[in-house]
Amino acid sequence: MAARVAGEPAAPERILSSARTEFAARGYDKASIRAIARGAEVDPALVHHYFGTKEQVFEKAVETAFSPAVAARDQALAVDLDQVGETMTRFIFRVWGNAVTREPLLAIVRSAVNNETAAAIFRRLVTRQLLSVLAGRLTAPDAELRVELAVAQLVGTAMLRYVIKVEPLASTDAEVLIARLAPVVQHHLTGADLGIAGAGRELTGTDRD
Amino acid sequence: MAARVAGEPAAPERILSSARTEFAARGYDKASIRAIARGAEVDPALVHHYFGTKEQVFEKAVETAFSPAVAARDQALAVDLDQVGETMTRFIFRVWGNAVTREPLLAIVRSAVNNETAAAIFRRLVTRQLLSVLAGRLTAPDAELRVELAVAQLVGTAMLRYVIKVEPLASTDAEVLIARLAPVVQHHLTGADLGIAGAGRELTGTDRD
Repeated sequence: MAARVAGEPAAPERILSSARTEFAARGYDKASIRAIARGAEVDPALVHHYFGTKEQVFEKAVETAFSPAVAARDQALAVDLDQVGETMTRFIFRVWGNAVTREPLLAIVRSAVNNETAAAIFRRLVTRQLLSVLAGRLTAPDAELRVELAVAQLVGTAMLRYVIKVEPLASTDAEVLIARLAPVVQHHLTGADLGIAGAGRELTGTDRD
Repeated sequence: MAARVAGEPAAPERILSSARTEFAARGYDKASIRAIARGAEVDPALVHHYFGTKEQVFEKAVETAFSPAVAARDQALAVDLDQVGETMTRFIFRVWGNAVTREPLLAIVRSAVNNETAAAIFRRLVTRQLLSVLAGRLTAPDAELRVELAVAQLVGTAMLRYVIKVEPLASTDAEVLIARLAPVVQHHLTGADLGIAGAGRELTGTDRD
């Protein structure tokens, strides 16, 4: 174990920072406590001492990567209800458009897609920290579902733009996309049931097969 | 190399089937030609002989997993333009709701999220086989972008429902979700610019909650 130099981050901070790097680089499956310890220049026992199991280290690392989302959530709680859609939409492009905040999130998505345990941790965190809190702003009985469909639009956009990189979506100016997406997100949150005017007509039409 | 029995699939079919299994189980990164050959009971050289590189085997396997999407695309090309949103939405729930069709798609998503080469193959296939063809049905100059934003809503929903499994989205009846999503998808495809009628009002209105 390396001796600490004055002004250097303490072991828990170094471990968390190393854990984020390790999970980002190798995903939950392949990341190891040993490598996290090596990156932090501590003994593996110290990782367990401070954070417990690999699952618990991951949860803590994810929470840290998730802090911009929590900040955005607080912003969404502060604006007028009819601005929540735009606030959420802007948040997605701000966070995913910046490599510094995108990479940790991408690492979480990768881990969650690859591993059931990581998916469960992610689900718990997203539900507790984001979805439930945002749903609390809405009065509709289906508030949670509304928030999730809104988030689905944004998550899908982030996937296609920043991960799969389909064109023209990947290179379209963020403001153009925000102008199109914010009303849809807002509709999910506070629109009347099927409240896209004209859409009910389309859906209930019986002239289909 | 095992001797073929009459009635058994020929080597190319066995190789493709084994490749799908291998890519699904281990992802693009970890999948190996050797394991694909073993699963197909052929020599690895035969995998290369029929399909070329690992990248090319993956592309072929993805194309096969993708065939339900191509069928749905053809259906979306056949219905009235104002039904395309619902057709696409129903397709997503049909394909992702059935483990037999979901698993190969999930394997592709996993690989694409983990590996740039796999993402590029997926992007090429999705663009050529789905997005461009569907955009061809629309007359708007921004047809490709419209299709992509529509697909983003559906992809995000599939991710949250079937991969991350957030509640209540994960256990809500598909018909309830289709009723909410189809109008949004249709709006992306054929709505006026920001054309969720009433959405402008919703966005600025204060007469809710």
